[in-house]
Amino acid sequence: MTTTATTLKGQPLDRQTLDAMLRRRLFFTPAFEIYGGVAGLFDYGPPGCALQANIVETWRKHFILEEDMLEIDTTVLTPHEVLKTSGHVDKFADWMCKDPKNGDILRADHFVEDVLEARLKGDKEARGQKVEEEDDPKKKKKRKTKAEAVKLEDAVVQEYEEILAKIDNYNGEELGELIKKYDLRNPNTGLQPSPPVAFNLMFQTAIGPSSNLPGYLRPETAQGQFLNFAKLLDFNMQQMPFASASIGKSYRNEISPRAGLLRVREFLMAEIEHFVDPEGGKKHVRFPEVNTVELTLLDRHTQLAGKTDVKKMTIGDAVSNKVVDNETLGYFLARIHLFLQKIGVDMNKVRFRQHMENEMAHYAADCWDAELLTSSGWIECVGCADRSAYDLSVHAKKTGAPLVVRERLDEPLIFEEWQVEIDKKKFGPQFKKDGKTVEAALEGTTQEQREKLAKQLTDNGELELEVVGVGSGTVKVSKDLVKIEFRKRVENTREFTPNVIEPSFGIGRILYSLIEHVYWNRATEDGAGDEARGVLSFPPTVAPTKVLIVPLSANKQFQPFVSKISQKLRKYGISARVDSSSATIGKRYSRNDELGTPLGITIDFQTVQDSTITLRDRDSTKQVRADEDTIIAAIQSLVTGAKEWKDVAAELPTFESQEVDVTVR
Amino acid sequence: MTTTATTLKGQPLDRQTLDAMLRRRLFFTPAFEIYGGVAGLFDYGPPGCALQANIVETWRKHFILEEDMLEIDTTVLTPHEVLKTSGHVDKFADWMCKDPKNGDILRADHFVEDVLEARLKGDKEARGQKVEEEDDPKKKKKRKTKAEAVKLEDAVVQEYEEILAKIDNYNGEELGELIKKYDLRNPNTGLQPSPPVAFNLMFQTAIGPSSNLPGYLRPETAQGQFLNFAKLLDFNMQQMPFASASIGKSYRNEISPRAGLLRVREFLMAEIEHFVDPEGGKKHVRFPEVNTVELTLLDRHTQLAGKTDVKKMTIGDAVSNKVVDNETLGYFLARIHLFLQKIGVDMNKVRFRQHMENEMAHYAADCWDAELLTSSGWIECVGCADRSAYDLSVHAKKTGAPLVVRERLDEPLIFEEWQVEIDKKKFGPQFKKDGKTVEAALEGTTQEQREKLAKQLTDNGELELEVVGVGSGTVKVSKDLVKIEFRKRVENTREFTPNVIEPSFGIGRILYSLIEHVYWNRATEDGAGDEARGVLSFPPTVAPTKVLIVPLSANKQFQPFVSKISQKLRKYGISARVDSSSATIGKRYSRNDELGTPLGITIDFQTVQDSTITLRDRDSTKQVRADEDTIIAAIQSLVTGAKEWKDVAAELPTFESQEVDVTVR
Repeated sequence: MTTTATTLKGQPLDRQTLDAMLRRRLFFTPAFEIYGGVAGLFDYGPPGCALQANIVETWRKHFILEEDMLEIDTTVLTPHEVLKTSGHVDKFADWMCKDPKNGDILRADHFVEDVLEARLKGDKEARGQKVEEEDDPKKKKKRKTKAEAVKLEDAVVQEYEEILAKIDNYNGEELGELIKKYDLRNPNTGLQPSPPVAFNLMFQTAIGPSSNLPGYLRPETAQGQFLNFAKLLDFNMQQMPFASASIGKSYRNEISPRAGLLRVREFLMAEIEHFVDPEGGKKHVRFPEVNTVELTLLDRHTQLAGKTDVKKMTIGDAVSNKVVDNETLGYFLARIHLFLQKIGVDMNKVRFRQHMENEMAHYAADCWDAELLTSSGWIECVGCADRSAYDLSVHAKKTGAPLVVRERLDEPLIFEEWQVEIDKKKFGPQFKKDGKTVEAALEGTTQEQREKLAKQLTDNGELELEVVGVGSGTVKVSKDLVKIEFRKRVENTREFTPNVIEPSFGIGRILYSLIEHVYWNRATEDGAGDEARGVLSFPPTVAPTKVLIVPLSANKQFQPFVSKISQKLRKYGISARVDSSSATIGKRYSRNDELGTPLGITIDFQTVQDSTITLRDRDSTKQVRADEDTIIAAIQSLVTGAKEWKDVAAELPTFESQEVDVTVR
Repeated sequence: MTTTATTLKGQPLDRQTLDAMLRRRLFFTPAFEIYGGVAGLFDYGPPGCALQANIVETWRKHFILEEDMLEIDTTVLTPHEVLKTSGHVDKFADWMCKDPKNGDILRADHFVEDVLEARLKGDKEARGQKVEEEDDPKKKKKRKTKAEAVKLEDAVVQEYEEILAKIDNYNGEELGELIKKYDLRNPNTGLQPSPPVAFNLMFQTAIGPSSNLPGYLRPETAQGQFLNFAKLLDFNMQQMPFASASIGKSYRNEISPRAGLLRVREFLMAEIEHFVDPEGGKKHVRFPEVNTVELTLLDRHTQLAGKTDVKKMTIGDAVSNKVVDNETLGYFLARIHLFLQKIGVDMNKVRFRQHMENEMAHYAADCWDAELLTSSGWIECVGCADRSAYDLSVHAKKTGAPLVVRERLDEPLIFEEWQVEIDKKKFGPQFKKDGKTVEAALEGTTQEQREKLAKQLTDNGELELEVVGVGSGTVKVSKDLVKIEFRKRVENTREFTPNVIEPSFGIGRILYSLIEHVYWNRATEDGAGDEARGVLSFPPTVAPTKVLIVPLSANKQFQPFVSKISQKLRKYGISARVDSSSATIGKRYSRNDELGTPLGITIDFQTVQDSTITLRDRDSTKQVRADEDTIIAAIQSLVTGAKEWKDVAAELPTFESQEVDVTVR
């Protein structure tokens, strides 16, 4: 298990060089930069936008198409009442502290983490130990507090480490206590900040011209799916289980966004809501297909013990050992693992971390995050929660809409029981304003009480019942107003509120982590000096552009070949770009290594003679040569994932390159 | 040219039956319906969501891939300052009136339109003329005002008609005058509403924890593209012309949204910004490819004359006759036409309408809307504007960012001219607070003046210049402070701000209009009674689901075939759905006719014997029969658009259907 961020080839990852490259190639860029930018908002340039589209497309195939999920597209604007019911208005908040002097606004958990980490670093320095900026696997951001070389007592070091291991487990009050107990001070002013207060993370707005309908930008796509549950069940012809899915933007007004794409205020999510019968152990019919998939797990107990040791385990074992709560949750954890693998994530840098009690919503049965290791530490990229029946229940209760499944029972259920039958026409006039109260008291009786009351009716022609707040507290009801009889009741249908298993993907975080995982430097690898020659080894299926077409020079003879090949690739829906600039072939290929373009076609003088072209593999820089149609067929098989380069290299004749000049820029 | 809404087969379009069908099949649904809904917000259910994705995918191929456009994804959240500069804060508004009694909020132009239309209808009734609800091609919404049979004078009828033809041309003051002049009253109260005031259509929010950064949800994707112009030009290696494109949500806080998907508050847009050199007549290199495409045009002059007569014209003629301003604008109008054709829009229900002066932004050079005829009248679905250099200029001016193109000139430009050279070090101390004013006056002199001033310097050792507001109004400057000489200036580069041609697509409006265009009723067509048997004849390329798989019955023998065929289709990325419900084959097909599924596979007892399956065509209900691989190959060719049903029907043996029962529901 890797614990520090490295490139694909195991080189130390130089974040600055990578950032400069991503900027230069316009993968993404701060939004509104010419206006000074806005923290937490980023635009995707052409390669980032294409990468995002390809990740989403792979996701759609892997999840939606594979399992016939019902994809829907719901609105971002959401009225207040919906998010009040879901609990977001009251609870979707982070803990925020304020500096009493300069008004600095600090996110409380990040602040505690930051100061304690700085003290631990200072301690190491004081002890003369080697300090690596990247050796803390929990670190999620750039450190703001400067470390001072002050030695701590061994017991204190241990306390700090245990706090950091479960930093996500503290509520606002507890964070406030930590700040006091350890006298944590804002490095900018040297003062203790104010006690943490909750800051709601939703962006608010007003809908309509009279501004009387308050609303929010949704913080997740899930609620829109829950509200449509009854319609979706209908659409699915009442069949259970089924899943809905949504891909769309969500919004969180982060207190202090940083770490680039990893903590932003506007982001693309892909969420699945899988609706399942809560009875019968939440089995999944396709679980046997993933049974042997091995996952890296960091469970709740390990974290609460202040540790971060992971275990490797098949999902089959994890479910049968009750490490993971149920089959359906386990099925999706395995499917998430397979998805990450498919898009090119380094599986040595993936772990599934279980939520601790305080981290989970109170209704959740279990929750695991897929975390990816990056230069900013372990990043939650996918959440997979069992949300139980919470959301459907609260919305049903609030609106009266029947968000339930009615299932015809194979064998009807038969109940024998004492039943109360009230003659409401006579009841009202008799009891007047107390009618409802007395009725409720009668309906609320237990089977035992009813048996006794029935006897009273038979024996005395009336019953006596205690009803608090009515008259003297005891009410008499005569037998012409009520019947109590032992009867049979037959139920042909069963009604239940489904539970929800929710895999939820942060596409931007996955995208950024993937970039770090596939990045490496060819120059370092070659041992050819410190020249920056970045490569992004995306799998061809997700690479932004699939093919670079380069004519050897500006010679006009090459132009018809460039056009013809471009058109053919376009016809097959394969994205290609032509570079007919005057730079050397090597430079043009290097530029596209940085863009992660996996394949290159060169058109040279031999092409003009015999119509053959060469095909270059980005990762090995090896080339093959064949006629146009053969090369295009090879490209098709590579970009659909049907073949790998080694297959193509084995089938087609190798070409020794004219690529002499490989200087960059 | 069609002027009333009909089905694909020319039947009168029954909007209520269609709406019920779209609701039943969950194409779209009011958002938050269980909470009572929010006007102008809709969710797309599975078929609507898939249809939307397929339209977007076709768009991406037709525009982005075809022309190597630079697709980017920018944020929806936009800070105040950006939209202040672009003019949206001050001018992106509709005119709103308020009823003095009940507070009804009315959109002024819709209100005027509504009342005048009702009066015209009442006039027709009074004259005993036939009144058709749908005969007004400009009608955009459901009428609120009830028509009363009151005859109008002929001159008044003409006035009303002329006002309606140019209703989009009035500003708030003019709308207010119309309300007074014709005494237009709110039907709910019988009162004249208040004079129109501007209501800004942007949703406002606050960014960050201290709420000190006001922002909006973008009303268009365009601004994000303009702000990235310099980076995109770099990415494109400084080559002009080029286009960027964005697909994403935009928001408009409509005063009174109605007409379903046609006027909503949150919507998906696809926008192109094509950057072009303003000099040289805005030629387009690929214009000859579309030269002969014939468009239906409704120009500005016709509308201002109070008419709605269209002209058919090739785009080549339209540009050379100056009906359309330039080649690049014309190129995109033709490309829009071809796109609409490709997705299955009825081209007899499309017209391109030119904006009138008041409708256009003041900076726009020309603007045309592609309007589609629906049961709500002619609907603007695509706008295509020449935005000139406006946006880039205002953002550059505000931020100082160089949003320009620098072009190396093949032949340098040489200017010979009188130049003023000021010695700034001496100038300040001499003139003190007046320094800047005198300097500006010197810099502002003409060539003729400079020649004279130069002579003064040579002759007198000083010059005399009129500078209003400095001293007596005449200033003397000695030759040690300034030089004026006849010199040569060489310019090697040309700098210019590109103009922007912007095709802008409202995907939701296109989607809804398309549904109306491809809808028809099989029962009416067969003459088989008034049974509702709706069909949506989407082209296979955009249809939500491509294939329905139906086993003849629940017999277990069919199951392996169902699984195998599903898997194969999935492998090829062809979306299919299985219906193994107990309904008759006919019912199951009818259900999928309503979903617009173009193809159906039946698995029957013959399949079990010889592995052949049948393939059904939705539109003709004809079937062919062949082995599995042949049928799947046929499906592939149909869904990619390579073949049409008639080709497949000619190649494969016809199958006479077991489809006996065709009763619906």
